[in-house]
Amino acid sequence: MASDRLEVGLPGSGGVASRQKTRPLAVLRPGRGEVEDLVAVEEPLEIRLAGETVAVILRSPGDDHRLALGYLFGEGIIREAIDATAVYHCGRLGEEGYGNTIEVAPASGAAIDWDRLEVSRRGGVTNSACGVCGRSAVEDLLRGVARLPDGPTVSSLAVAAAVEGLRRHQPTWDATGGTHAAALWDEAGALVAAHEDVGRHNAVDKVVGALLLLRASGQTPRPTVLATSGRGGFEIVQKAARAGIPVVACVSAPTTLAVEVAQAANVTLCGFVRSGRLNVYAAAHRFPTEGQAKP
Amino acid sequence: MASDRLEVGLPGSGGVASRQKTRPLAVLRPGRGEVEDLVAVEEPLEIRLAGETVAVILRSPGDDHRLALGYLFGEGIIREAIDATAVYHCGRLGEEGYGNTIEVAPASGAAIDWDRLEVSRRGGVTNSACGVCGRSAVEDLLRGVARLPDGPTVSSLAVAAAVEGLRRHQPTWDATGGTHAAALWDEAGALVAAHEDVGRHNAVDKVVGALLLLRASGQTPRPTVLATSGRGGFEIVQKAARAGIPVVACVSAPTTLAVEVAQAANVTLCGFVRSGRLNVYAAAHRFPTEGQAKP
Repeated sequence: MASDRLEVGLPGSGGVASRQKTRPLAVLRPGRGEVEDLVAVEEPLEIRLAGETVAVILRSPGDDHRLALGYLFGEGIIREAIDATAVYHCGRLGEEGYGNTIEVAPASGAAIDWDRLEVSRRGGVTNSACGVCGRSAVEDLLRGVARLPDGPTVSSLAVAAAVEGLRRHQPTWDATGGTHAAALWDEAGALVAAHEDVGRHNAVDKVVGALLLLRASGQTPRPTVLATSGRGGFEIVQKAARAGIPVVACVSAPTTLAVEVAQAANVTLCGFVRSGRLNVYAAAHRFPTEGQAKP
Repeated sequence: MASDRLEVGLPGSGGVASRQKTRPLAVLRPGRGEVEDLVAVEEPLEIRLAGETVAVILRSPGDDHRLALGYLFGEGIIREAIDATAVYHCGRLGEEGYGNTIEVAPASGAAIDWDRLEVSRRGGVTNSACGVCGRSAVEDLLRGVARLPDGPTVSSLAVAAAVEGLRRHQPTWDATGGTHAAALWDEAGALVAAHEDVGRHNAVDKVVGALLLLRASGQTPRPTVLATSGRGGFEIVQKAARAGIPVVACVSAPTTLAVEVAQAANVTLCGFVRSGRLNVYAAAHRFPTEGQAKP
């Protein structure tokens, strides 16, 4: 049995070995000579489900169990953490590459959607006889995702606090400037989970994986605001919608596709959340006391 | 014949229809009411080669011909632009989704690497019996890419100028804050090509596509510095290496994998190019008068 085996649903199980997230490298500063600089580590992770390779992704090492579950959930391949019985790294400690292959063992009778695996491998957006357009892309991206109910309401203060709070959970960014981050806050403004990663989507997958594990162990967190560094990409909104997170708050700009996905999924999408200000691009009805934008 | 058909190798051919890159959307600014805001357009593009779908990617509309060629080249599927004879959008103007499917017609006898297409679909990094590690990832990412020769030399002033010059080619970013950009400069510091895109990699693919088209029409640009907004991802270094661009300059941080790919490909990787300063993370020998870092 691998030492870092996580038994899904058992609180406290899974000695998730801490991994080095930064590495000192020699760099030249022209005119000032050679210095040592901390750089964010990026390594491949092979995610396996029942022994089959689902994907090889590049990520910051650490929190791989959460990442694997969040990834499989985000791609629509599993529906909840208890579709897995255990998650563990393959191989033996000390072997080259140990810690870069993770196995998700399905629970007996789990609702694994192997068809989604094929869609995932093709990038999530499919073509049809009539070609692709923005509308068909939104439909593809939200396939199997239920439209969120209208509640709860939020305030611009709460959304600003979620993004400001994210900054306190970015130690790797503070050291390297090379990582993204995501933090999930509940209805009362308490932290559910926060993660950094060299990949924006991975940071969100790790947070969603943490949420799924809380649910699997019988807790009932009320995820409300997902704060992310960087821009508001459609993938972030898509992942939030699937996880039932009603509000996405980004430091920077969204794209039109992110806005369209948010509108279709009824996710409140906030961008340019900075210096106490923010823009609401979709589902502004969750700000009932602060004026309405078009739905 | 489609109106925007580009005949590869014929200078001046290809009426590349300009497409709207921004869209005005109604946004709520809590406490200040509803305003109109410009958002960067993101739409799917299906890239076909000889009628077969290679990928569906999300991108800023416009410059799709360059994007398609740069993408196929970056994935190692074609080796130069003249592996294609023509590039054109499928369908008819006015149809929904027109402009979002582009066909690359191979030249007769072209060296199309259909095996690379399968690798590309699996994400570029493959697993092996012994799993994945950083070393095997670097090998995968540089498969088929020749290590660059040591020349030419560059100065920190030239690299800083390349990044500062990039800022003058970001009209969509100025309007929306939602796009990345890449600009390629030659040995004399003249612009070869500059493009914006909602996707970092797409911006580089468009620039590389422009470079390939110049070469196909008999010109001999000497690409030297690729300046990119944002972080120094390994994909940017990988694309530069394949295109024979010796220097990559990023506004923000690289990751360890980007540094490893740059070292293996002999690409000079500069990060944090800001305010007249920069860090050189790999192949610092191209700064011969400004001190040496480890290779």
